[in-house]
Amino acid sequence: MFQQITILGPGLLGASFALALKERGLCQCVQVWSRRAETRAQAKLATWCDRVFEQPGEACVGSELVVVCTPVETIVPLLEQIAPSLERDALVTDVGSTKSLICREARDLAEGLNFIGSHPMAGSERMGMAHARGDLFEGAACILTPLENATATEIARLSELWQAIGMHVVTLSPEKHDEIVAHISHLPHLLASSLCSYLADQEPEWKQLAGSGLRDTTRVAAGDSTLWQQILEQNREEVLRAIDGFETELHALKTALLDRDSPSVLKLLARGKQYRDQL
Amino acid sequence: MFQQITILGPGLLGASFALALKERGLCQCVQVWSRRAETRAQAKLATWCDRVFEQPGEACVGSELVVVCTPVETIVPLLEQIAPSLERDALVTDVGSTKSLICREARDLAEGLNFIGSHPMAGSERMGMAHARGDLFEGAACILTPLENATATEIARLSELWQAIGMHVVTLSPEKHDEIVAHISHLPHLLASSLCSYLADQEPEWKQLAGSGLRDTTRVAAGDSTLWQQILEQNREEVLRAIDGFETELHALKTALLDRDSPSVLKLLARGKQYRDQL
Repeated sequence: MFQQITILGPGLLGASFALALKERGLCQCVQVWSRRAETRAQAKLATWCDRVFEQPGEACVGSELVVVCTPVETIVPLLEQIAPSLERDALVTDVGSTKSLICREARDLAEGLNFIGSHPMAGSERMGMAHARGDLFEGAACILTPLENATATEIARLSELWQAIGMHVVTLSPEKHDEIVAHISHLPHLLASSLCSYLADQEPEWKQLAGSGLRDTTRVAAGDSTLWQQILEQNREEVLRAIDGFETELHALKTALLDRDSPSVLKLLARGKQYRDQL
Repeated sequence: MFQQITILGPGLLGASFALALKERGLCQCVQVWSRRAETRAQAKLATWCDRVFEQPGEACVGSELVVVCTPVETIVPLLEQIAPSLERDALVTDVGSTKSLICREARDLAEGLNFIGSHPMAGSERMGMAHARGDLFEGAACILTPLENATATEIARLSELWQAIGMHVVTLSPEKHDEIVAHISHLPHLLASSLCSYLADQEPEWKQLAGSGLRDTTRVAAGDSTLWQQILEQNREEVLRAIDGFETELHALKTALLDRDSPSVLKLLARGKQYRDQL
């Protein structure tokens, strides 16, 4: 499908993506750039990596596809940096968890930059290339957020690529994407983090008593703090709206408990169960 | 270890307990009572069950140990019902998720009732005997909440039993138990339920996009609504205190986001991560 692609920032997502392509024979040559010398050294030893570069622009020369897999704050600066080195028809995408800011800024960057945002809804709290898995994306959703200037051909090409590694692809505006993920990803994450941060204030021995419920509920809170700080801040408006909505819901449960209003407590729990059973 | 034990209410926990004992050769005969005819019929076919009764008192005759595995609201009424049928030295325990109310009321019930509360911190949102597993309790904590009248011999006997099926046992007052589980179990549960109840108000298509993060974070919300309504209400005071504390924590994150105070956002996420990494 591709002769040559470039991965900028081969962490868990970037490395898993390259591995998934190679395992399926979808790509001949994978070029890699990482800011960190240690990651570059690691990449040189990886089966899915063919060439490693010290400059992001150099890594993009000759590639049909460039996938930016770095933290959300660094995506646009990197696009700016690689723009002069890109092939004329190169397709550029990312795997960032926010889209409005990135897509808006990418549009203003350089004429002829064929950027279409991607957000594969896959990942793990275990970061880094060492945890890469060729099946990481299988069965998960991938949201594409093309801007008005994207051609149908480019959108189809990118869409087919994510589908080829097992994802079901949905196309949304960057704004709609950010509204949705604020609710189904960023809110769950910050609740898990807040819960853990709150429990960190309690007696340390309580931890020993925790069951699998607490472990599952808070798993995502083990994710990289800096990455998530950037994500929450880039999606600030929508995240704040989601927090407000959740606070109202939690307050309703609290009021029902205070009022010894069993039917309302039960109703809220049953509504939650019904939703969860459909997930 | 035991010639004969009785399980009242053989759901996931009761059936798994009986299975765990039988697999390890710790019990000769398991007697069972269930309120529901369907469950009694199912129990008759189960490998771990020797005799099934239609009356809870009858099921307890001749048993050295009685384990009440019914919803928390029904535990004390059942204790009252079986008291006249219990053997003189029979040890009685439960697996309820709340302890203060149950233990206080059990103490006032009948002289000579050897009741010691147990709370095995194991389970699953998949309820019922059909999901029973002999290894359900392995590696998890079990909290015992003996009252002042419990003898050291009885406590040791019950403790050894839970240990024999793989649990590490901690002894606490019923009040301390309720404070702790309000934080590490009931709060995570109600947050998951509130999150799901809130998301149920959003566009139904969003569900299709959810990743494993949302699924893990909300897994417990699939638990039985009536069981959890009873648990939250029996532990009302402590649960309300835990909600208050959590609300303050969430408000701090919201304020930091509103104020574009990145260091505070990062600090909260990092504190949460540090706690989660220790779980």
